[in-house]
Amino acid sequence: MNLILFEAAETQEHRSGELSLSGTRAKHLLTVLKLAPGDDVRVGVVDGPRGVATVRSIAADGTVRLEYALDERAPPAPRVDLLLALPRPKVMRRLWAQLAALGVGRIMLTNAARVERNYFDTHVLSPSRYRPLLIEGLQQARDTHLPLVTIHRQLKVLIEDDLDALAGPATRVVADPAAAATVAAAVGGRTDARVLLAIGPEGGWNGFETRLLVSSGFRPAGMGPRTLRTDTACVALLALVHAAIAHECPEK
Amino acid sequence: MNLILFEAAETQEHRSGELSLSGTRAKHLLTVLKLAPGDDVRVGVVDGPRGVATVRSIAADGTVRLEYALDERAPPAPRVDLLLALPRPKVMRRLWAQLAALGVGRIMLTNAARVERNYFDTHVLSPSRYRPLLIEGLQQARDTHLPLVTIHRQLKVLIEDDLDALAGPATRVVADPAAAATVAAAVGGRTDARVLLAIGPEGGWNGFETRLLVSSGFRPAGMGPRTLRTDTACVALLALVHAAIAHECPEK
Repeated sequence: MNLILFEAAETQEHRSGELSLSGTRAKHLLTVLKLAPGDDVRVGVVDGPRGVATVRSIAADGTVRLEYALDERAPPAPRVDLLLALPRPKVMRRLWAQLAALGVGRIMLTNAARVERNYFDTHVLSPSRYRPLLIEGLQQARDTHLPLVTIHRQLKVLIEDDLDALAGPATRVVADPAAAATVAAAVGGRTDARVLLAIGPEGGWNGFETRLLVSSGFRPAGMGPRTLRTDTACVALLALVHAAIAHECPEK
Repeated sequence: MNLILFEAAETQEHRSGELSLSGTRAKHLLTVLKLAPGDDVRVGVVDGPRGVATVRSIAADGTVRLEYALDERAPPAPRVDLLLALPRPKVMRRLWAQLAALGVGRIMLTNAARVERNYFDTHVLSPSRYRPLLIEGLQQARDTHLPLVTIHRQLKVLIEDDLDALAGPATRVVADPAAAATVAAAVGGRTDARVLLAIGPEGGWNGFETRLLVSSGFRPAGMGPRTLRTDTACVALLALVHAAIAHECPEK
């Protein structure tokens, strides 16, 4: 953890104060960061500001008493949203922390023809399972912006009825191994805008889904001839989109 | 698997012929790809050409008899090599297939001050463990170029004595969260060259190691303020380097 995240309820919206940690975070402070009284640690509040805390005392039961001051703004909110055909539970479980670490504003998980129905009947989609993994990713990346997660059982309803309200104005890009355009070209040099990135299931979108996406403004973008696993593709494509909107890759 | 890889010994360097598969590959053909006699499947030979095979028969014990023709050249060899401070075994285990799928010519695993010594005493570094994982990544990406793996217990010896011979002429880039230059800028528009990408341990290179790398020609490149886990960083950085040398990101 490069930042310890507090819940808003823990600080009660006070900009400075004291609080006690026990459990995973306290254990991390003591056994990984090996902090002693007087040591500082970077902290933040979920969806709030960041700052520094000083260890005041460590109780015999491992409870760590911290004095914190939250005088640093949160980092800019990620300007990338993800529309992802739900991968199998094992892959999705691995992805949560990585998505939060790379930075996404919103994660929309959707059904598709090549998504197995039973992927939706899984613990990995319950907030009590994925929220700690998202927090883990934020703590890794020193961010405080918790991605918003929504689950959509019908791609057509999502795209036609809900997407404009959920995603707002954004450059829409769909990953497509057959596309000639690069991610940078599909993002199109709109470095001031949001990007909504759609990534299909292992077997790809079917013809109907591809037409639906393209007719809804998604521009196909490829990464060359190598076919990647969903989790590898998600990380690679998010890195390319972030680089493209950070002026790294101007339009060609 | 998007391609079934044969070992060179299995085809005895014949460009066409018949061979029988049992074990993992046969099981995959039958239970995942659900092939029947007469169906085709894409095939290739490790470090050799690619082609197509037709299922000729399926024995009662699940052995699959294939007739193959290897008349397609291998894809171009990856132009990126990786110098990676050895991550902990669990992370390294996850990385092998992803590295092979993304495409690397050579994987040099090295010690560093912030690498735990016992990471080297692990099964994950024995070829019998990692080779199947590399093959899995190649089959995912439809490649045949098996990455060359070397293990280096002393970074200084690797950099000062061995690196020129191992890596040859290449643009050298070291991932550095503090660097202002982007990956595309560090690669420097040398789209015809190889890139050697160095990625440090979770805690970063120490001062001596950073100076050693920079004085050996490695240019620092960053990915913005977000700190990523080693496995996420490897995938993200390899995607950015591949995009940079594929003309996606011209020098700025």
